[in-house]
Amino acid sequence: MKVVILGCGRVGATLATQLDKAGHSVSVVDSSNDAFQRLDPEFGGMKILGNGIEQHVLKRAGILEADAFVAVTNGDNRNIMASQIAKEIFHIKKVVCRIYDPIRQLTYNELGMETICPTLISANILFDAVTVDTKHKV
Amino acid sequence: MKVVILGCGRVGATLATQLDKAGHSVSVVDSSNDAFQRLDPEFGGMKILGNGIEQHVLKRAGILEADAFVAVTNGDNRNIMASQIAKEIFHIKKVVCRIYDPIRQLTYNELGMETICPTLISANILFDAVTVDTKHKV
Repeated sequence: MKVVILGCGRVGATLATQLDKAGHSVSVVDSSNDAFQRLDPEFGGMKILGNGIEQHVLKRAGILEADAFVAVTNGDNRNIMASQIAKEIFHIKKVVCRIYDPIRQLTYNELGMETICPTLISANILFDAVTVDTKHKV
Repeated sequence: MKVVILGCGRVGATLATQLDKAGHSVSVVDSSNDAFQRLDPEFGGMKILGNGIEQHVLKRAGILEADAFVAVTNGDNRNIMASQIAKEIFHIKKVVCRIYDPIRQLTYNELGMETICPTLISANILFDAVTVDTKHKV
């Protein structure tokens, strides 16, 4: 499948590498050229320099042919806006958006956006780790 | 149980609130007073202002009586150092350390430190979300 990832931070770069290794066609968009250094040296996908909420940038990343879009920049608002563009304008079937703020995540989830909230995920894992006597390793 | 949390960012504040609501005795340490505003208004635990890698600050937070210690500042190095202090100097049974960098997380895991890596957790969840056709909600 063809996946466009917005944001080449740690999570974006790790995900891009995982998908590329699994045989998927991956484009990663970031506004900083340095960010692409986080990618695996053997990464075979496309690296697109630009602002991922601009449609011509997303088109350069191949969004017109994409099956999935993932927004993982450091900004919740940017991720939300880019995900809405991917869904409403480019009609991408699978759009997943990272939102750090649990309150905004809840709101956008209720509006039908598929989201993940690392804040809640981490807090829940840590809660289990300190209250349940088992070693958690990820 | 008595839990000391270092770092009152989003994850620290969410975890502190969860543990407090579940009836545990919680102390949160942060070097910024503003950080404590992230706590639930009804948070009943202790808020300790200070540098959490200083032993007198940890003692003020009640580390001598603590059953568990969680390090979730924004700095991997600070979390690692504080966790080592909690484990080696204060002999806290349950120490959990957040490490964003997957490579350092692997290293410290192999050295016996209990860690979580939000980078890998998020990347893995997103990988499943885009490759498996099921809605993931957290």
